[in-house]
Amino acid sequence: MRLKITLEYDGTDFHGWQVQPGLRTVQGCLEEALTKIMGTAVRVTASGRTDAGVHALAQTVHCDVPRDIPPENIGMGLNSTLPRDVRVTRCQSVEGSFHARFHARSKVYRYLILNRRTPTALMRNRVWHIREPLEIQAMRAAARHLKGKRDFAAFKSSGEDTSTVREMRRLHIVKDGDFVILTYEADGFLKHMVRNITGALVEVGKGRLAPVDVKRLLADGSRDDAPRKAPAQGLTLVEVHY
Amino acid sequence: MRLKITLEYDGTDFHGWQVQPGLRTVQGCLEEALTKIMGTAVRVTASGRTDAGVHALAQTVHCDVPRDIPPENIGMGLNSTLPRDVRVTRCQSVEGSFHARFHARSKVYRYLILNRRTPTALMRNRVWHIREPLEIQAMRAAARHLKGKRDFAAFKSSGEDTSTVREMRRLHIVKDGDFVILTYEADGFLKHMVRNITGALVEVGKGRLAPVDVKRLLADGSRDDAPRKAPAQGLTLVEVHY
Repeated sequence: MRLKITLEYDGTDFHGWQVQPGLRTVQGCLEEALTKIMGTAVRVTASGRTDAGVHALAQTVHCDVPRDIPPENIGMGLNSTLPRDVRVTRCQSVEGSFHARFHARSKVYRYLILNRRTPTALMRNRVWHIREPLEIQAMRAAARHLKGKRDFAAFKSSGEDTSTVREMRRLHIVKDGDFVILTYEADGFLKHMVRNITGALVEVGKGRLAPVDVKRLLADGSRDDAPRKAPAQGLTLVEVHY
Repeated sequence: MRLKITLEYDGTDFHGWQVQPGLRTVQGCLEEALTKIMGTAVRVTASGRTDAGVHALAQTVHCDVPRDIPPENIGMGLNSTLPRDVRVTRCQSVEGSFHARFHARSKVYRYLILNRRTPTALMRNRVWHIREPLEIQAMRAAARHLKGKRDFAAFKSSGEDTSTVREMRRLHIVKDGDFVILTYEADGFLKHMVRNITGALVEVGKGRLAPVDVKRLLADGSRDDAPRKAPAQGLTLVEVHY
């Protein structure tokens, strides 16, 4: 039986999604819990990796389990077995052809900035704290250059060599009290792409780059002049659409 | 010089506010940091205690420091010295007569409930997760019996013997997506009062108590029949008014 599992996790105490020997990862915890419940080794495939410190409201994975236990029972069993910083929010049986990574049509990420002078204790693992007031209109003007089908090579992490063209379907920037919330939706994301773009948009918000500089960076296709990437803890994978 | 310090803290990893030998408390961490910065023992007085697991957006304390260092510098020094789960959000000099506890005119607490079937990883230390749908209108009807100047003996923790009369100036209940947010403002709160009242209002929300039962509980003045108190992690001290 093939299962589709939706997961919420707090990335703070994980070395990211992917299994790494000797390190606490979300995939490692999930496979351990599944293996314990099913009594046989189970491997999972996610919609994609998330970095250390990055959170998820709806990471999606698939896996094959040998027995036809009702999926809801597997979900409940996982929540009794998993550590408190990972929860199964949905567990359903799907067709054997379903693939969490290849069938993902789009993904939605949210990046949260706390934009005020005073620091925060309660949100320290969930936001990028920026003291300098950000110019939201300038950030929105810059974001317009990043919408649609583009070559995002300038915003990829080094070492990647597959196609760097992606379609950015949504890039919303909303101010809500002291928070600036950036919402990204694309058919796929390159490694560190959201964090790299957020880093550039923040430079625009601070007035250190003009909106048109982002257009130029994108056209140049090089990370040599690109601003540093935003820190991991502000980022959450919020949806995967199939 | 007398200082008024405003603090934000994440109560998750603290054994509450008050100093206790061998335990990690917010007061203990703050006094340790102040003593280190000032080079002499400094004791602080808070607007009141908070329990283990309870958070604060604006706990307020006063203390006397021997030297006239600019308060902003002391605030910055504290934030370099304190652990990441406590932050000074404001540090100012005040008149020598200012008292963080006796001069507090009112306090505002917020209690956060996550009301959905699926569990949460990201909010696990910030909400009371209740699966059963809550009837907000019934909770509001019950809350109306608790407004104004009342004897809250039925909602105090045992062992307290001072006056149990308090004036509840505000008791708002708002539904926001999957969240139910209860806001309490009073001239003062008895020990566990917000958690005890929240526990009773949730029983009303589940239909196990009628709104009028809360009126009866209040009139009886006894905790014998009162519902259990709400868990600590949903509670945040959000404001102290002077």
